[in-house]
Amino acid sequence: MARERRRRRGGSADESDAKNIPKAPAYIKRKIPHYSILSDDDLSIIEDNADTILEEIGIVFSEDQEALDILKKAGASIDGMRVRFPKGMCRKLIQDNAPKQFTQFARNPERNVEIGGDNMVLVPAYGPPFVHDLDEGRRYATIEDFRNFIKLAYMSDNLHHSGGTICEPVDLPVNKRHFDMVYSHIKYSDKPFMGSVTAAERAQDTVDMVKIVFGDEFVDKNCVLISLINASSPMSFDATMLGALKVYARNNQATIITPFIVAGAMAPTTAVGVAAQSLAEGLAGMAFAQLVRPGAPVIYGNFVTAMSMKSGAPTFGTPEAAHMMNISGALARRLGVPFRSGGGFNGAKMPDAQAGYEAANTMQATLNASVNFNLHTAGWLEGGLCMSYEKFIMDADQAGMMRVSAEGIDMSENGQAMDAIREIGSFSDDVPKHFLGCEHTKKNFKTAFYMSDVLDDNSFEQWVQDGSRDTAMLANGIYKKMLSEYELPPLDTEIDEALLAYMKERKDSFEDSNV
Amino acid sequence: MARERRRRRGGSADESDAKNIPKAPAYIKRKIPHYSILSDDDLSIIEDNADTILEEIGIVFSEDQEALDILKKAGASIDGMRVRFPKGMCRKLIQDNAPKQFTQFARNPERNVEIGGDNMVLVPAYGPPFVHDLDEGRRYATIEDFRNFIKLAYMSDNLHHSGGTICEPVDLPVNKRHFDMVYSHIKYSDKPFMGSVTAAERAQDTVDMVKIVFGDEFVDKNCVLISLINASSPMSFDATMLGALKVYARNNQATIITPFIVAGAMAPTTAVGVAAQSLAEGLAGMAFAQLVRPGAPVIYGNFVTAMSMKSGAPTFGTPEAAHMMNISGALARRLGVPFRSGGGFNGAKMPDAQAGYEAANTMQATLNASVNFNLHTAGWLEGGLCMSYEKFIMDADQAGMMRVSAEGIDMSENGQAMDAIREIGSFSDDVPKHFLGCEHTKKNFKTAFYMSDVLDDNSFEQWVQDGSRDTAMLANGIYKKMLSEYELPPLDTEIDEALLAYMKERKDSFEDSNV
Repeated sequence: MARERRRRRGGSADESDAKNIPKAPAYIKRKIPHYSILSDDDLSIIEDNADTILEEIGIVFSEDQEALDILKKAGASIDGMRVRFPKGMCRKLIQDNAPKQFTQFARNPERNVEIGGDNMVLVPAYGPPFVHDLDEGRRYATIEDFRNFIKLAYMSDNLHHSGGTICEPVDLPVNKRHFDMVYSHIKYSDKPFMGSVTAAERAQDTVDMVKIVFGDEFVDKNCVLISLINASSPMSFDATMLGALKVYARNNQATIITPFIVAGAMAPTTAVGVAAQSLAEGLAGMAFAQLVRPGAPVIYGNFVTAMSMKSGAPTFGTPEAAHMMNISGALARRLGVPFRSGGGFNGAKMPDAQAGYEAANTMQATLNASVNFNLHTAGWLEGGLCMSYEKFIMDADQAGMMRVSAEGIDMSENGQAMDAIREIGSFSDDVPKHFLGCEHTKKNFKTAFYMSDVLDDNSFEQWVQDGSRDTAMLANGIYKKMLSEYELPPLDTEIDEALLAYMKERKDSFEDSNV
Repeated sequence: MARERRRRRGGSADESDAKNIPKAPAYIKRKIPHYSILSDDDLSIIEDNADTILEEIGIVFSEDQEALDILKKAGASIDGMRVRFPKGMCRKLIQDNAPKQFTQFARNPERNVEIGGDNMVLVPAYGPPFVHDLDEGRRYATIEDFRNFIKLAYMSDNLHHSGGTICEPVDLPVNKRHFDMVYSHIKYSDKPFMGSVTAAERAQDTVDMVKIVFGDEFVDKNCVLISLINASSPMSFDATMLGALKVYARNNQATIITPFIVAGAMAPTTAVGVAAQSLAEGLAGMAFAQLVRPGAPVIYGNFVTAMSMKSGAPTFGTPEAAHMMNISGALARRLGVPFRSGGGFNGAKMPDAQAGYEAANTMQATLNASVNFNLHTAGWLEGGLCMSYEKFIMDADQAGMMRVSAEGIDMSENGQAMDAIREIGSFSDDVPKHFLGCEHTKKNFKTAFYMSDVLDDNSFEQWVQDGSRDTAMLANGIYKKMLSEYELPPLDTEIDEALLAYMKERKDSFEDSNV
């Protein structure tokens, strides 16, 4: 049993060094109320519109006959590749089968995360082909960068997840890089992670590799992978995404069904139009997952940017995108599925003030929208094309603030602090009073406030004396120090060797290709 | 009558050029719901605690016998300079007398602002002795800087107010600079503004000057000044602030009663402790204003920062401060008075990523807290010690986003956009579809999304071609262009001459002093 447990997780908690125990909780338990900018009546209108879209217009399941057959059998109407759903069909499939909340297991059980409900899991950025740091500027990402960011995410107390394509290792062949990516997530971190979605067989490789870590039966019964299935908005899914979705759902692994929307291009310009179309797309994808395997975990995803009507480029950190996220979050709660969106978005080309404003705006929007799985929390630059070492550090620091925000208010006697106020209030009227020395402050000061490790609160004079460094320069020093201090989390040698052998065999079985 | 009207306002709307008509509304009408992180039950506990503080501990009204006499006569218990209030006394005085919402009149009636209710007025930063720009770095502010920032605020569509001590003109003698500050607000802008509070007689000078602009009777009946009265927390008001408060209240002008709190020093470390103490201080100050003149407009103010437990410095943009602001906002709504707090806070020494993160965090917090009078919206740097030209431009841009955020969601047919979705949905399945060319997009695209004038959404390649400029550099160009294009708003010559004559006479009547 002990052996089974170790084998399942590839390194259990009791093997970990004390230094690996996170200072912050493994995920955020939200204790502040939800906030919806729309009323229940307004949300009902959007749900009705989504049902109308599903019934009248339908969703294209592109080039996937198996999907069409499954949907037809379940009662949908098929017209070429277009699938029309009777009103309420998708919602019922999801509500009857999909879990409202589930655990994603990590190989270190202390890192397990709860997805859904009032929980919030903060995840690094996903997908950038470029990396940026102050020393070398912008360049294509490599597998070394990929490993570096996994290490940084592993060491960041306020990031709860290792992410997926934390950056794209373009120095490896396209059709084999997923092996190294999945292996790196397992080897260099013990946090939960995401699977490959660029082809059905790469999804299967991912599942096969996690089975080596967790065991076949455990994987079949539990979620150890969450993977990102984007809709091809408007109102379509492509064969690649459907292929990956089927693999993960069949293996009882979680999929995030995300309409990927630049409003004005892939959807209407208006928040309510975007919300209805996105919901229709999400309902179709999540219902399909339930048909593939009832009970497979699904997450409703939201990725919306507004299009710049000047340049045509996507914009980030804007109020319209925040509105759309808020509405989609409320719709997910009403549907009863976990909600994924993203924080840390920005269109900046370097970790400057724009990066800060836009990232903070998006992070605050995710808090207001009660996001459960918060992709892109750290590192995102340049509309997602670039992963920034310095911004990763800054964002991870902000992630800690999000935790404190979500944890809410202490209404206990200690929180009310009337003793402190009485103590100070008892002082004579003609002496200046302060709380620095009072018992309550002494008892609370170490944990009273979130203390940033990155941002500079010193006086101007002290800051000049320290070298007049801006935040990016401070973050540059921090990421390098972290990487120099990184230590591998323990991994069962047997598992490690099995993973390496599996990769070698699979890699040798077909030619390199960049498609 | 026409003359009276012109005289009152010093330049009425019909005299204005078309270019002076703001593109954005004169203030924000919030259409999104309020958000309280605490329940009504929890807020009641805080109100009870505040009443306990007022009754048991009391508030020191320092060195102001007149204030003590007024309070004694009204039923408070006086013990030296300490004033104890029977439970409910302050709340009743405020609720029976103070307006829930009021108009602050500007000399251009199109710039009048509504304070309270669901309205939000965005106001520049207040108080910095230093200014910063990329060209000259950090230096002491001058009256020229003061005028420049008034001009920039005047030209910023999304700032609704000229503010007060927009920066401290340290090149003028302390005891006379208020004349030039008030005159500059009147001369270089036609937006509403704030009065001097550094001495009772300077408050009176301010009132006398606005009477020249608006007429005696109009000023006595209407609010044309809002002025900032900070409590000397913990649980005290000083004689200077009480002196200014009395002048403004007697003249029926608005005061913002703001406990100025670095949590851990001027109040306990906990949010609920801060909220109770602040409420007690605010209740005492606002009730006192109602005793001075029943019905004088008051605003409940909130200024809270958490103290760095490493350096002792105040911190900004932090989650604890956001919590405290949210609670105070909810308490203000329950009390039924307008609420003032601040956005744009940060501890950065330059307009870098820290400035962006912290300012955006604070601005989002003000939205969540339903702030009515949002001081420090634009320009604030370095914990309020410094006014940044570049950050002013960035923040004013963010102010536009706050407006869009607060305006909420269009649930109309056009907002639902089902026609657009049906149009695109009717296309054949095997061609890529997008909304760029559809009728709905053509009709909506000009106003669909807030377009930043500062932040860069271009591609990396375009950005490099444009000179690889960070946001601060872009803002540097914008503020200079604005100042070069500035034109004086029309001001009645008679009024201008009367103001100049008043100032000369008053300035000549006493010696310069820097106290």
